[in-house]
Amino acid sequence: MNARRRSADRTETIMQAALDLAGEVGYAKLSMEAVAARAGVGKDTIYRRWSSKALLFLDAVLSLPVADLEHPNTGDVVADLRTIMIRAVDLLARPPWGPLYQDLIGEAQHNPEVAAALNERFIQPQAADTLARLKIAREQGQLAPDFDLELAYEILSGPLYFRLLITHEPMTHAYFDRVLHVVFAGMGSRPQP
Amino acid sequence: MNARRRSADRTETIMQAALDLAGEVGYAKLSMEAVAARAGVGKDTIYRRWSSKALLFLDAVLSLPVADLEHPNTGDVVADLRTIMIRAVDLLARPPWGPLYQDLIGEAQHNPEVAAALNERFIQPQAADTLARLKIAREQGQLAPDFDLELAYEILSGPLYFRLLITHEPMTHAYFDRVLHVVFAGMGSRPQP
Repeated sequence: MNARRRSADRTETIMQAALDLAGEVGYAKLSMEAVAARAGVGKDTIYRRWSSKALLFLDAVLSLPVADLEHPNTGDVVADLRTIMIRAVDLLARPPWGPLYQDLIGEAQHNPEVAAALNERFIQPQAADTLARLKIAREQGQLAPDFDLELAYEILSGPLYFRLLITHEPMTHAYFDRVLHVVFAGMGSRPQP
Repeated sequence: MNARRRSADRTETIMQAALDLAGEVGYAKLSMEAVAARAGVGKDTIYRRWSSKALLFLDAVLSLPVADLEHPNTGDVVADLRTIMIRAVDLLARPPWGPLYQDLIGEAQHNPEVAAALNERFIQPQAADTLARLKIAREQGQLAPDFDLELAYEILSGPLYFRLLITHEPMTHAYFDRVLHVVFAGMGSRPQP
């Protein structure tokens, strides 16, 4: 085993120790000392790579395997968005990923470095993929020329995050379908004059 | 000055010290010791009332004066919702309230007691007021009988929170108007068969 391979293994061991401990004691009580002890490495080894617990945790959460979130193109834009967003709902709503991701977002609220990295590495690529799929649909005439792609993305995502982070109402497939319906078919009603 | 009045004054002094310090050093670095020193009271005095920094901060943020967020009833439901939501946008988007509230939500992500209290004391009353206003409009025939009140509330709120907590895109009146338009008039387009 060469040095690079050993280093990669050690990185994985440390990240896994951080995730395990976060699951056991909660992110707030996670400490670099405990991660070092669990991973069987010195604290210096961890600090050489990660300057803070927050950045270690960010890498650890984002290294977890997740379902494929790249939009297919079956020709049916609503179905394609539903396929991917239902996967995202399942990811957000369930352990282990959901609670760890929620901790990460909590940390991001007072840690601009984590907020920026989370945005760049996780949120923006997903947003770009959603917008690209919607753009194709608009170009193919499946959506009106004035369809607001960015707003559609934010309305598909925002209420889910609102439930995850604020109201803690359940995030179900049925709930997402109600949101999807609003974006592609409207609230089913109009204010009467 | 009687004992009750003195106690209320001291409570205010402590909460104000917590808010001032959070503004200066950030919520993450806020400590009960520093609050006690700034407020000129003993740490025990603080702990007698608040068992943790998080609960003190919660009370402090929720004690700040905010604009009236109770919906008027002018007969125009869209205008009434806009009036209140624009005030909410201004509150969320600007100091001092916006950043303090963001810290509170960050704390809520790993503190179920704060999450529950925030929901009960701030989110749910607002949700109830929004739903009540929408319900009157539906009863008066200004909204269709199948208009989904709860979903409308979540679509009006969710994208704003998504911007505040995740993407950090600006929260402007113009942005809220785009969201409002979707709820009451649709995306202005339909998928073509």
